[in-house]
Amino acid sequence: MDVTEVSFEQVLGAAKTISGVAHRTPVMTCSAIDGIARRRVIFKCENFQKVGAFKFRGAFHAVSQLSDEAAANGVVTHSSGNHAQALALAAKMRGVPAYIVMPSTAPIVKKAAVDGYRAEVIVCEPTLAARESTASEVQARTGATFIHPYDNDDVIAGQGTAMLELFEQAAELGVKLDAVITPVGGGGLLGGTCIAAHGLDSSIRVFAGEPSGADDAARSFQAGELIPQTGPKTIADGLLTSLGQRNWSIIRQHVEQIVTVNDDEIIAAMRLLWERAKLLVEPSSAVALAAVLSAGFDPERSAGTVGVILSGGNVDLERLPWMSNS
Amino acid sequence: MDVTEVSFEQVLGAAKTISGVAHRTPVMTCSAIDGIARRRVIFKCENFQKVGAFKFRGAFHAVSQLSDEAAANGVVTHSSGNHAQALALAAKMRGVPAYIVMPSTAPIVKKAAVDGYRAEVIVCEPTLAARESTASEVQARTGATFIHPYDNDDVIAGQGTAMLELFEQAAELGVKLDAVITPVGGGGLLGGTCIAAHGLDSSIRVFAGEPSGADDAARSFQAGELIPQTGPKTIADGLLTSLGQRNWSIIRQHVEQIVTVNDDEIIAAMRLLWERAKLLVEPSSAVALAAVLSAGFDPERSAGTVGVILSGGNVDLERLPWMSNS
Repeated sequence: MDVTEVSFEQVLGAAKTISGVAHRTPVMTCSAIDGIARRRVIFKCENFQKVGAFKFRGAFHAVSQLSDEAAANGVVTHSSGNHAQALALAAKMRGVPAYIVMPSTAPIVKKAAVDGYRAEVIVCEPTLAARESTASEVQARTGATFIHPYDNDDVIAGQGTAMLELFEQAAELGVKLDAVITPVGGGGLLGGTCIAAHGLDSSIRVFAGEPSGADDAARSFQAGELIPQTGPKTIADGLLTSLGQRNWSIIRQHVEQIVTVNDDEIIAAMRLLWERAKLLVEPSSAVALAAVLSAGFDPERSAGTVGVILSGGNVDLERLPWMSNS
Repeated sequence: MDVTEVSFEQVLGAAKTISGVAHRTPVMTCSAIDGIARRRVIFKCENFQKVGAFKFRGAFHAVSQLSDEAAANGVVTHSSGNHAQALALAAKMRGVPAYIVMPSTAPIVKKAAVDGYRAEVIVCEPTLAARESTASEVQARTGATFIHPYDNDDVIAGQGTAMLELFEQAAELGVKLDAVITPVGGGGLLGGTCIAAHGLDSSIRVFAGEPSGADDAARSFQAGELIPQTGPKTIADGLLTSLGQRNWSIIRQHVEQIVTVNDDEIIAAMRLLWERAKLLVEPSSAVALAAVLSAGFDPERSAGTVGVILSGGNVDLERLPWMSNS
């Protein structure tokens, strides 16, 4: 398998590509949360990104890298989450077709979101095998390029651009970032953040937060080899997937610690972000703050000011996780 | 009654006073909402202000204007809403006591929020007469200065600072604001916005959104005289109060139109802000956007780019207005 590391130059290139297209999302601080965390925390708010999640960065960059010939045949992916919407929008912006393979169990609202970007949704059985074979069929039929949600160099480079902005924005606030933390699922955001952070300043410490109910990254980290996720169960529905091969290769070299948190901790952190910082984020985003607030994070309290990348804000507003009836 | 208009210079003075203390809250745009509104809309996000609402601007400014002698005796107000929290925090920051008169019917969470700023809460019967007499008793007993939530020149000048920033931030985005709209309850935010907007540029059109279930400002506007609110009923719980004398005097001169919207429109606008812009705002904030989206607003479509001041984000996260069981 071809596992060459994404370069810092590729991240800088992605930043040029997405400039003026993706939002330069704001950073926010909240003194109440700083008090609870007993440290300065700077939030990079990708919930305000196009399609409501950082995924637009990687998807747009990946689509932009296709030749006109390849692009004309469109792009395909299997996802029911934020990557599906991001790829659909990126394809629409380039004026090419997008084919999104979605399991029949995906909520109707997810299909509607992708429909809104005029992508073609292909429904399949809710198994990984069915998703992969359906995507392959679509590729064979249409000549579309498969854009993996995270195990793809252009996607990883695109996701790294959030860290470039965070570093710059912290400096604008007069703050030196000592550390950065992101949630980890497939590892696209974390991998891109690693390359960007250490390209900017090799002394920045990189952490990840992971749900204990989907802790393949933490277990891989401990074992020193990639262990796939089986039977994940967590409220952080954006982080159920297994770490990608490319992402693992980056993460094992650059990440200092993967902090696992349980669903109660995730819900508490999410509620803190909503209630105190008025930041409408999805559970997967709250994982990174939950990790910072957990006893397992930086027990020597040497990490100083921490940048927290809030990955997205796509939440079912009909039922919130802290409501007793959900 | 002494009704002299707040000057633009007072608003500029307030801006100096609150600089570095209040947040310069971000402005946000949302292409999905622009599409629905069929115009450019720029949101000034006071939900990210200290205490989660613009009220901190006016309260901090008013407390800062007190002499050391007066301040030492503290400040008092009757409110169960955002002004109570704002005054409590402003007093705490100056190191002086705050006395907050609250009706016994106020939710426990409101009392807890004020307790958190170490203010003294005095509970009274849930009538305006009881609130006023209790506040007078506290004044007599402590020598504290009464700070009205909106019918107070220093408060009005402080609220006007949000408009100064919005104007500046729109210019930074390369956008010329043609109009601005705020919700109207007591009229502090709207009054301050009038003075600031027309001090900056007399061609800016000033609008207000008001719940049809608490439409004293619209009725006063139509009648040409101040008509107090009786029996208000709306989901926008920050806008139940009657327009202040000082505020009315400003508004009648500066405001072009007061657009009323019903609770269904308010809830729909709030949901749009949450779902599409990921902006966690309270129903009162959504009134201004609801007004912009209503047929009654700018029927000639001549108002162009509209700045919308989102007043705050203090919401009961246990039940949201679009949930069937609330």
